[in-house]
Amino acid sequence: MKLLENRILSDGIILDGDVLKIDNFLNHQMDVNLLDEMGKEFKNIFCDVKVDKILTIESSGIGIAVMAARYFNNCPVVFAKKGKSANIGGDVYECAERSYTRNIYYHVEVSKKYLKENENVLILDDFLARGEALNSLVSICKQAKVNVVGCGVAVTKAYQDGEKRIRDMGIRVESLARIKSMKDGLIEFCD
Amino acid sequence: MKLLENRILSDGIILDGDVLKIDNFLNHQMDVNLLDEMGKEFKNIFCDVKVDKILTIESSGIGIAVMAARYFNNCPVVFAKKGKSANIGGDVYECAERSYTRNIYYHVEVSKKYLKENENVLILDDFLARGEALNSLVSICKQAKVNVVGCGVAVTKAYQDGEKRIRDMGIRVESLARIKSMKDGLIEFCD
Repeated sequence: MKLLENRILSDGIILDGDVLKIDNFLNHQMDVNLLDEMGKEFKNIFCDVKVDKILTIESSGIGIAVMAARYFNNCPVVFAKKGKSANIGGDVYECAERSYTRNIYYHVEVSKKYLKENENVLILDDFLARGEALNSLVSICKQAKVNVVGCGVAVTKAYQDGEKRIRDMGIRVESLARIKSMKDGLIEFCD
Repeated sequence: MKLLENRILSDGIILDGDVLKIDNFLNHQMDVNLLDEMGKEFKNIFCDVKVDKILTIESSGIGIAVMAARYFNNCPVVFAKKGKSANIGGDVYECAERSYTRNIYYHVEVSKKYLKENENVLILDDFLARGEALNSLVSICKQAKVNVVGCGVAVTKAYQDGEKRIRDMGIRVESLARIKSMKDGLIEFCD
């Protein structure tokens, strides 16, 4: 998606340790117009599948998922929670996820009430690098016996193993921007 | 807002300890249609003020804020982050917030880049009870010397002191649903 790629080139900042900061339009400050265009594009890509529900993970996935849901018949959005919540109740699907950016393990959970067997679930998230977050969501979906129709990602670091890891489970992964390399402050996208 | 009040009555669950769970349509599973109507209503309420930016706090505020932003000329949305992020950089406005539901202190922060002096900021959040979250956001706005044009809240427990606390700082607080009492499993709204 050219619009997103161009925005990454103009506003993205590469930090030490292979971190791409896009927090001025996606994961701290959010450009609502861009989110809307991204939602539209996810619908274009996943126009051929039935989507009953969108699953994402707090926090940066939520804006993307909510705006995208408008293009998927305003289907419900569920966001997985990180950390044990006193408020969510005990009856949850759960998984442990290592966060690369914070370098700690997160507990990820979704209330069993909000994933029903055989539902068609589209997973959306902002970033795919090593795949911890998506992997957790897929694991939770397997526990819930829902049908994962695909994973839609805003930005994928295609040179890391996360994308392959999810595809190796037989799950379709589509990204709006796939980064081929990030060297010497230069971002190159896959064709 | 009748639509929200009725939804709270039909789907809200009161837990021990005065906790209202509305996680099947607002803060775990999200009803996108309802979020849209709520955004429209926030615009109706705050039609008389100039809004340059919407500020909220992760995670449950994000869906509300993003959908509302569409009715405020697609203005940018900034969400405050809880906990120290390795990814956000050091240059932040920060505040400590006690979470009633999780019973711990959260560090709340916003990058200085995303709040500019004299900007007109509308604060939106899902819940107002004791006011810790809103108070943190207001504190951060004061540090940034932005102009807080108001606080919009989905659900306020009017019998707790948070609403008064914010109003006593001279800030306008508007709620879509104001709960007068929650006793014996019965929710009563203010007129």
